[in-house]
Amino acid sequence: MKAFRILTLVTLMTNAAASLHAQNNDVEANDPHPASAEVWQNVEKASLGWGSTDVRYGKGDVPRLENNIMLNAWRGERVSAQAVLVTPKNIDRLTIEMSDLKNGSNVIPSKDIRKYFVRYVLTDSYLAKNGESQHGAHLTEAFDSFLVADRLQPAGEMRVEARTVRPLWIDIRVPQDAAPGRYKGMMTVRTDGEELALPLTLVVSNRTLPLPSQWKFHLDLWQNPYSVADFYGVPLWSKEHFDLMRPIMTELANAGQKVITCSVIRHPWNSQTHVPFESMIGKTRRLDGSWSYDYKVFDKWVGFMMDCGITEQIDCYTILPWHSTFEYFDEQTNFSREVRLDPQSAEYEEYLLPFLSDFARHLKQKGWFGKTCIAMDERPKAQLEAAYKVLYKADKDYRVEGAVNYFAPEMAERMYDVSFEYAHPALEKDLLDSHLGRGGKVTFYTCCGPVRPNTFTFSPPAESAYLGWHAAAMGYSGYLRWAYNSWVANQLTDSRFRTWPAGDCFLVYPGGSSIRMERLVEGIQAYEKIQILRSELKGKKLEALENELKRFAPVNMEESVNAADEVNHARQVLLRLE
Amino acid sequence: MKAFRILTLVTLMTNAAASLHAQNNDVEANDPHPASAEVWQNVEKASLGWGSTDVRYGKGDVPRLENNIMLNAWRGERVSAQAVLVTPKNIDRLTIEMSDLKNGSNVIPSKDIRKYFVRYVLTDSYLAKNGESQHGAHLTEAFDSFLVADRLQPAGEMRVEARTVRPLWIDIRVPQDAAPGRYKGMMTVRTDGEELALPLTLVVSNRTLPLPSQWKFHLDLWQNPYSVADFYGVPLWSKEHFDLMRPIMTELANAGQKVITCSVIRHPWNSQTHVPFESMIGKTRRLDGSWSYDYKVFDKWVGFMMDCGITEQIDCYTILPWHSTFEYFDEQTNFSREVRLDPQSAEYEEYLLPFLSDFARHLKQKGWFGKTCIAMDERPKAQLEAAYKVLYKADKDYRVEGAVNYFAPEMAERMYDVSFEYAHPALEKDLLDSHLGRGGKVTFYTCCGPVRPNTFTFSPPAESAYLGWHAAAMGYSGYLRWAYNSWVANQLTDSRFRTWPAGDCFLVYPGGSSIRMERLVEGIQAYEKIQILRSELKGKKLEALENELKRFAPVNMEESVNAADEVNHARQVLLRLE
Repeated sequence: MKAFRILTLVTLMTNAAASLHAQNNDVEANDPHPASAEVWQNVEKASLGWGSTDVRYGKGDVPRLENNIMLNAWRGERVSAQAVLVTPKNIDRLTIEMSDLKNGSNVIPSKDIRKYFVRYVLTDSYLAKNGESQHGAHLTEAFDSFLVADRLQPAGEMRVEARTVRPLWIDIRVPQDAAPGRYKGMMTVRTDGEELALPLTLVVSNRTLPLPSQWKFHLDLWQNPYSVADFYGVPLWSKEHFDLMRPIMTELANAGQKVITCSVIRHPWNSQTHVPFESMIGKTRRLDGSWSYDYKVFDKWVGFMMDCGITEQIDCYTILPWHSTFEYFDEQTNFSREVRLDPQSAEYEEYLLPFLSDFARHLKQKGWFGKTCIAMDERPKAQLEAAYKVLYKADKDYRVEGAVNYFAPEMAERMYDVSFEYAHPALEKDLLDSHLGRGGKVTFYTCCGPVRPNTFTFSPPAESAYLGWHAAAMGYSGYLRWAYNSWVANQLTDSRFRTWPAGDCFLVYPGGSSIRMERLVEGIQAYEKIQILRSELKGKKLEALENELKRFAPVNMEESVNAADEVNHARQVLLRLE
Repeated sequence: MKAFRILTLVTLMTNAAASLHAQNNDVEANDPHPASAEVWQNVEKASLGWGSTDVRYGKGDVPRLENNIMLNAWRGERVSAQAVLVTPKNIDRLTIEMSDLKNGSNVIPSKDIRKYFVRYVLTDSYLAKNGESQHGAHLTEAFDSFLVADRLQPAGEMRVEARTVRPLWIDIRVPQDAAPGRYKGMMTVRTDGEELALPLTLVVSNRTLPLPSQWKFHLDLWQNPYSVADFYGVPLWSKEHFDLMRPIMTELANAGQKVITCSVIRHPWNSQTHVPFESMIGKTRRLDGSWSYDYKVFDKWVGFMMDCGITEQIDCYTILPWHSTFEYFDEQTNFSREVRLDPQSAEYEEYLLPFLSDFARHLKQKGWFGKTCIAMDERPKAQLEAAYKVLYKADKDYRVEGAVNYFAPEMAERMYDVSFEYAHPALEKDLLDSHLGRGGKVTFYTCCGPVRPNTFTFSPPAESAYLGWHAAAMGYSGYLRWAYNSWVANQLTDSRFRTWPAGDCFLVYPGGSSIRMERLVEGIQAYEKIQILRSELKGKKLEALENELKRFAPVNMEESVNAADEVNHARQVLLRLE
């Protein structure tokens, strides 16, 4: 009458978690490695200047800044800039304002410019203190911690401590119908009544970037709707939940996202995220041994994402979960079960075949079957072979998406959308061409590796942009990352996670963006420009473009390579070739 | 990508367990304390004699036996006897046969006599080796183990080892229409071709015991249908499952059982059994926060038990589980949850009120509401108060059954059926009378305590019979025990369980009965006889009966008291008073 274990203990009311998370502490952590106070001795008054989007400004440093900046953009492009406020004194109330950008009577209105406070969060590093890569030991003494500028918080007002800097980020969304030309405008910063102003020049080219929905770049950042409900403490799939997700997923659509991430079984990746993915499809084993399926959540989610503008592809994780366990509700016990099923076993087919058959029927009914991929994440060949057998038995026309961390052209061949790990033996050119020729997609991905280029919160920001250039250089369709918003425990102030390098789990923060996300979009836009230029340029100019792109081809980025230098150089080349 | 835990890992196919359990080893364990071989030195040939049903014969002992036996029975009563075969040699094939019992032209046919081999199982003891009562430490080095005769296996044929005894049990079910008189018959034992015979006399009185369904004794032995499915490896609630349960539950009806045990939430008692009780009612929290309930299993089970002849009361465990956790299927996550709910919390009501309201509606629709009790097991007052509030809010006419291990007349008052722990401050006579006067039931119970009288596999068999006498002496309605068939891991050969004294979890074995169950029924029959005699006898005879019963009144059985002596004395008194 003593011993007992509760298998899944949660509070009944999802709302119980609400107050906790909604108050998710927004006060920045102390800097574990504070800058020397010496540099502040001669700073007598607040100043404002333009910095670089390549730099994560140290909170206690006094940086060298510029008084002017000139940005270049295509019509329809979005471009970023970073200013930095340096203050020797406390500021109770910091606000920023952007004027309209004007070129004679032509105006890019201030409403098309997003303004952010850059916020500091804790990060760690790729390697532990002992120099080893220790996945799973993050958030322990094994790793050192650092305070870095990463989170972009829409700029309302904020307090600023004495002897700190506050980077300010803007993101100008140049309308597609903006007249080409040289625009001028002004950033105005107000600090407790004082005013600092900073001029800005934007040169709009006569070239036009298509709308994100028409970008060719196959962007596949996995969404985690469960994280959003958890962070805000709202019931999953409630109106509040969808209302909170709408801006987050609309911004993802604005980044050119093509894929809707769906979890069709419970915890497809060993619950590797702070908030795990539950199943969007209910599976019930009836008393008589037959099955029934509930698509309510799946349908709501997919429909919602399509409303947000992500309509091309529906990736369903998975029929090969890492743990090989599969859940269902058992009417015999009136409780859910998880069963471990070897993909080569009869029980695997017994569980999956009726599900996949019914799922195909449902997808066809919704008109979604042709958009849907059954998604496989880094599974070995033997498992894939076994899964294909059941999959095609259920419906021979099922499409497959797969992330592959080994060279297996015979596996990739059967995937409509295949993603190869960066730093991996590259797909041979003819294989790539034949795959793309068949209408398939080939992307590359980064995740907890490589150390560079990557999008950790300690990664140099330009590495995020580098990814788009790499895709263009390699001829890939795009890029895949496993986590757009799998938020961690103290999401607003601490990007570290117990398992992976800090920032691996997410590219955006609740209510805002990140330096990494903005630079990633910059790279995607470069990819789009390159596609356009490749189709137009000829001879020496095309050669110059391709030559420049070769800088981004290596699948191992040497430590000596500086992504910012590479990207800035290539941007200049692109600008000349326009 | 490394760490993960499977919360509920089971094989998908319940049948996978089938072969394992169906072969549940039937070979008796070695005796941890073998008898001295010396006693066998002068035993040259097999012999057969009558023993006593009060004795668990040692497997290696050579007992003193009788050549004759005379049994007494009312018409409609069942009576047991135990013979013992003593063999110095191996017997490859032992069979037994009973003749018809005859009294002139009157016959009690042999088909009304059940024949069993008494089988040896491992047991332990109430106290650990160090003299302490250590619940939870059973099946460890802390306890000594013993081999005892307990299981009654329907006698087909069996092998018998040299220098062992094999007790043989019979159970004569005297038909209600048997003519009174002295019947004679014969047991014949065949051992590899040799034959041993033993005469038997049965005196049938002219009094008639009602059918078990009409017995007044309120027998409440909790059934565990989950154990049966597990033992035989058949799907829960399948036709095979019900077919296997039918004889087990029909025999329970034949013992006078009045109550159907239902688990309406998952693991109502902290999974304290080898095979836990699942919920017979499915509860689903829909996406919109509303609830739906599935009574399929509950209806099947209750309907089946009624078919078996147990029709009076439906006990539903519980709204006060020991762990305070409650399960439901959550459409948000398409998985089951367990939530811990303080009975005094708003969430407790939020979970239970809609369920109890809908359950009342369902029970009324089935015509079962008046038979149903919401059952509470040993819960403290404050929890009961809180539960009553929600219960009566759902339906003011809900009945409650409760096992109470403290003196709380104000709690008992609100229970239709209340059970007090033996060895507990007795309910005062006027409280008892007023409760019974209101039409309620008052039983007593034994469980992992007291050490005596009880029904452990090491308990003297007469203690099982003693329980009926005690109920009669105290004026109780009957007896409650928490486990009729919560079978343990090696059920056929080992009665020990990790938590409680051996045999605490069950009174019958798969496919058979036990010495304890048969003696328990004997005591219940004595209780029925006493009710009849009390209503008929007057003056000195009634006084003699009541005086005799006083011997069974103490709620602490002293170590010096021998249950067999007490019961045998009282049986003689009853025989004289008939």
